[in-house]
Amino acid sequence: MPSLDRLLRPRSIALVGASESSNWSRRIVENLRMHEFPGPVHMVNPRRPTVFGQPSYPSLRDVPGDVDMAFVMVATEVAADVARDCAAKSVGGAVVLTAGFAEVGEQGHALQQELMDILRGGDVALCGPNCLGYVNPPDQVAAYTLGLSERIPCGGIGMVLQSGALLGPVLRYTTKRGIGLRLLVSSGNEAMLDATDYLAYMCEDPKVTVLGALLEGIRRPGDFMRLCERARDLGKPVVLLKVGQSEVGRRVALAHTGALAGSARFTDVFLRRCGVVRADSLEEMIETLGLLAAHGRPPSRRVALVAASGGICGIASDLGSSLGLEFPPLQAETLTALREVLPPFATPQNPLDVTGFGAVRPNLFNDALAVVCRDPGADIVVAVTTLPDAPGPDPSAQERRLAATAELGRTSGKYMVLTGYTASEPSAYGREVLQRHGLHFAGGVAAALRTIRASAEEGPRAVLARDAPARVPELPATGGLLDEVASKRLLAAAGLPVPREGLATTLAAAQAAAREIGYPVVLKVISPDIAHKTEAGAVATGIGDPSALAAAYDRILTSAVRHRAGARIHGVLVAEQASDGVEMLAGIQRDPQYGPGVLVGFGGIFTEVLQDSALRLAPIDEAEAHAMLRELRGWPLLAGTRGRPAADVDALARALLMLSDLAVGLGPRLRALDVNPLLVRPAGGGVLALDGLVELAG
Amino acid sequence: MPSLDRLLRPRSIALVGASESSNWSRRIVENLRMHEFPGPVHMVNPRRPTVFGQPSYPSLRDVPGDVDMAFVMVATEVAADVARDCAAKSVGGAVVLTAGFAEVGEQGHALQQELMDILRGGDVALCGPNCLGYVNPPDQVAAYTLGLSERIPCGGIGMVLQSGALLGPVLRYTTKRGIGLRLLVSSGNEAMLDATDYLAYMCEDPKVTVLGALLEGIRRPGDFMRLCERARDLGKPVVLLKVGQSEVGRRVALAHTGALAGSARFTDVFLRRCGVVRADSLEEMIETLGLLAAHGRPPSRRVALVAASGGICGIASDLGSSLGLEFPPLQAETLTALREVLPPFATPQNPLDVTGFGAVRPNLFNDALAVVCRDPGADIVVAVTTLPDAPGPDPSAQERRLAATAELGRTSGKYMVLTGYTASEPSAYGREVLQRHGLHFAGGVAAALRTIRASAEEGPRAVLARDAPARVPELPATGGLLDEVASKRLLAAAGLPVPREGLATTLAAAQAAAREIGYPVVLKVISPDIAHKTEAGAVATGIGDPSALAAAYDRILTSAVRHRAGARIHGVLVAEQASDGVEMLAGIQRDPQYGPGVLVGFGGIFTEVLQDSALRLAPIDEAEAHAMLRELRGWPLLAGTRGRPAADVDALARALLMLSDLAVGLGPRLRALDVNPLLVRPAGGGVLALDGLVELAG
Repeated sequence: MPSLDRLLRPRSIALVGASESSNWSRRIVENLRMHEFPGPVHMVNPRRPTVFGQPSYPSLRDVPGDVDMAFVMVATEVAADVARDCAAKSVGGAVVLTAGFAEVGEQGHALQQELMDILRGGDVALCGPNCLGYVNPPDQVAAYTLGLSERIPCGGIGMVLQSGALLGPVLRYTTKRGIGLRLLVSSGNEAMLDATDYLAYMCEDPKVTVLGALLEGIRRPGDFMRLCERARDLGKPVVLLKVGQSEVGRRVALAHTGALAGSARFTDVFLRRCGVVRADSLEEMIETLGLLAAHGRPPSRRVALVAASGGICGIASDLGSSLGLEFPPLQAETLTALREVLPPFATPQNPLDVTGFGAVRPNLFNDALAVVCRDPGADIVVAVTTLPDAPGPDPSAQERRLAATAELGRTSGKYMVLTGYTASEPSAYGREVLQRHGLHFAGGVAAALRTIRASAEEGPRAVLARDAPARVPELPATGGLLDEVASKRLLAAAGLPVPREGLATTLAAAQAAAREIGYPVVLKVISPDIAHKTEAGAVATGIGDPSALAAAYDRILTSAVRHRAGARIHGVLVAEQASDGVEMLAGIQRDPQYGPGVLVGFGGIFTEVLQDSALRLAPIDEAEAHAMLRELRGWPLLAGTRGRPAADVDALARALLMLSDLAVGLGPRLRALDVNPLLVRPAGGGVLALDGLVELAG
Repeated sequence: MPSLDRLLRPRSIALVGASESSNWSRRIVENLRMHEFPGPVHMVNPRRPTVFGQPSYPSLRDVPGDVDMAFVMVATEVAADVARDCAAKSVGGAVVLTAGFAEVGEQGHALQQELMDILRGGDVALCGPNCLGYVNPPDQVAAYTLGLSERIPCGGIGMVLQSGALLGPVLRYTTKRGIGLRLLVSSGNEAMLDATDYLAYMCEDPKVTVLGALLEGIRRPGDFMRLCERARDLGKPVVLLKVGQSEVGRRVALAHTGALAGSARFTDVFLRRCGVVRADSLEEMIETLGLLAAHGRPPSRRVALVAASGGICGIASDLGSSLGLEFPPLQAETLTALREVLPPFATPQNPLDVTGFGAVRPNLFNDALAVVCRDPGADIVVAVTTLPDAPGPDPSAQERRLAATAELGRTSGKYMVLTGYTASEPSAYGREVLQRHGLHFAGGVAAALRTIRASAEEGPRAVLARDAPARVPELPATGGLLDEVASKRLLAAAGLPVPREGLATTLAAAQAAAREIGYPVVLKVISPDIAHKTEAGAVATGIGDPSALAAAYDRILTSAVRHRAGARIHGVLVAEQASDGVEMLAGIQRDPQYGPGVLVGFGGIFTEVLQDSALRLAPIDEAEAHAMLRELRGWPLLAGTRGRPAADVDALARALLMLSDLAVGLGPRLRALDVNPLLVRPAGGGVLALDGLVELAG
């Protein structure tokens, strides 16, 4: 893989296919000039002697000196020729705006492959094709072909968009909010470099403090997870807007980039393990990136809020509470100190309304805020204030007060977020003030609370390896479903407790088995042709003695054969009758993209009513297994509710670990595994896999 | 109540306390001039001969001619004098900015009462005190004392804010978005006129098309509901940002305005019945008002979306789906027609990405949109487009295309929403274009989808009266708890089936009762001193014969007395043993503000696990009773799940109606009523109130 430095931080640029009659050419020239790109920008156009007032070279090969980055805006048919020129000229990287490649079908696919082969052969990094370029404000590169109304502010955000058309709305939004960028790339068709490559590059850039991406598919989950681990080690949060999570969105994403979308639920679980912050709209992604670039991750969910309006305090309280933020009560000393600062009719509390008395006492807000910042209850302080639209009668006092507000956060060690009341954009003057003082100003109280909440928690660290399971059971060579007996044998070999049981092919053998197991017992007809035993009448429970067994033995065999004429009968399973516990279901599901996942939920009557299960990628560890159980809505059934004992949660967690180890040990041979029901007895009583079904790949 | 016309639509204004040295005075004078208020604006200030270049009158009484509205900015101490002047001058209304009244405590309360008495005596309408005024752009009145950067656009929104400090942020947001207002009032302390009064006034104003309010408390629920009914009849949606719905928010609202907040859950239920659209942030409230003012209520949740970006289609799909919006697939003819319009590499589907090919074919977007508008699947069409920041090379073509986009909605009969990609504000030129063509432009795809969803459904109409229950049972004269026997007698009298049962005070009587009822039976010790019978060991179930009854009789009496020495024993209740059904709980709760509500949920093991109940204000009707049941998460337990029969849902709904009638019939005497468990038998089997507890007010 070629280095990305020359592609994304070029000292010289060539615009291949530059033409005054093309909007794209005009715009990129304007954008580069607006950002005062310090190096040479060469024009390449064989049909003109000059372009944009500069000499035009017939080919890249004719350009004097080194070219770090070629920006290619030629017709699809000649793109390969230009690629050859790039290779011959030893260009560092090519940004290919030209479309008509993989996105248009088979033929385009071949053209794209040719393009890539040529560039790869020349060690030329390729951005695109079918992309809209990138912007790198700190290096003054705006290699972007749509209009910009003003210069893009510099900052710590590194971002990739798999959708080029959204570059414009994103740039407009960040610029109007004064949110600065380090690098924003439209990755286009991702022929050579994909989103994970750009993010990995940005992650190592000391100027990048936070990473963001709009992704339709995650092409290489393993590499993406390693990137997230690396970003976490470097203290750089990753914010993701992942599209294609709904049924409709999946269809749209497939049509758009053909990206492999993976199952939505596995994607959620995967991204949670990656520890990324999720966003569900462009605004939320950008607001979150802005917050994290300015302050890093919020340390907790405990918020104090100060404003000069009771109304906004009420709105914030309701919204924050519904998001799961806490507003800890202020301590007694804080209340006392506030009473000295506030007018007598104000109520010292959190959130704090300092009242409109600030119109009379301009320092009221900061004085009260200083007191709140000394309270130990909250880690986060949201200061709701107003950014001036224009210089007032005493602009320096105005600015000093705002700077003092931010300073209070810094000196008190609080995570302080400055925000306006609503998402109204700051004026140009307001942004100037923010920039002058190096301040971040969130896009309104609602956005501030939402972004704090969204980014307040890191996902669990991935369990990248666990000791291999002691014994990986041997498997039959062929694929398909294993019957209950074989499935349970596999479970038992993995360490999961199964009932005492035996397969009998005669009544006498069944009675002997029951004697050994001890009455009462359960009988089940075992047949590869009968999937739902209960519906087939092929199960009898609560059999208390040999004569009852004899009657049941006959009945269920008759019933099974009547249910499915010609069914192959392997025998009758005699098993101990187990009861007295919570019926769960547990299992392993394999996603084609993300690999095996461990699933647990409630069985029996709760299955459909609660529709409640927890999923994690394997391997999991013990903490994760317990976390899965606690996130179930039906958790009170396990923890013990009024009149019901607590279940053996530890044993259940251990069972999930066993399943996880089994999934890792068996690898892709194991397609799916269901234990249903998994009986969880009262604490100390352990678990018992009452039924099991294993599906193997061939 | 004085008419509000002269207060809110004045033809002449007096500024009482006007002074060049006051920011407030300066600002209101600037604001009135900016909006070119057509009538006279008189200055009243006894200490100056001229103010703001105009003659200043010593008192209101000295002002020549009629004064419709006096804007009062004097010290608290002289406010009553000014009120007397208002009455003497026959002013139509006074907006009292002056603070220091009820919001500062007891003494202020008395001053406020005095002020109000004087004004009421003079038939002068009072806005405030302690408010920030109001704006009425169509009548060119900006009676508002903070800075405005530009003239406020006219529109159909009528809005009241109980928080004056939020007037500024709201005005800034609406103005920057080009959302027009008819009337925006800061209601302040609401001494005479409260939010419901203003809304009722606005509701009758033909220029108002949608109503909005930020409320901390609903002072008169009955009047508010009538207002909502009236607004519904006139086709004017009501959008509400109700604060104080969380624990923290309730505390904040109490401190702020002392408004009676009501229980959050009852408030939710009340507002749902009122059919209001809820918002949870200022931005959402304003975006929703903007949408509704432009288009009215969305007819359904079926959306088609058209954009020139696959990325935004993906975001919209996921977000819309998670909100519960539907994106119906396009019909075959639509797909065929789209294939003719779109470039070959585009995928015709909903949401539709027309691709970046529009850069080459400017009419692509509208051509594709026209086809989508003919598809019958969706009622709502979201057109994601870009508003020009500045006139392009051919501004009229640019505008024509935008106007054509909106026109497509109108001619096709679709509910068409124009929106940008994100919440970025339109430029001044963009707003000019919107105004010129009378267009509404939503604040981004995410906001558009959220507001469509929030306003797509009307709440149920209130059941304002039902036939009085046939017989309202007689009640004991004293208050307190009724025991199980008395409670069930009340339930039975109301028509609710109760078990066959009898109270016995001797073993022989108990055995006789059991014989008559038929074994098996249940025994319960009835004592006013034992609330939780099961915990006290005072219940025995499944008693199959006289001797078992004798043993149980002794056992539970002993146990009850041991549990609570000296307990008064009224007897032993012998009841039929009922089983085989779903255990529900049903009851009546009375809210001090909103009156009685009917509650239903799951009993037994599900109570704590599901924490799942439905509440409605009484009276309810049959449709509402069924809707309550269907909204329960555990509904599958009633509807019947795999292997379980459906419960007698009709009988359960009838039981809820009986409870509702009982609540209405008994009125405030009934404090609370619990039926737990209420056994619901399989379909056709009816219900049975197995236990009941009634609490009466004295």
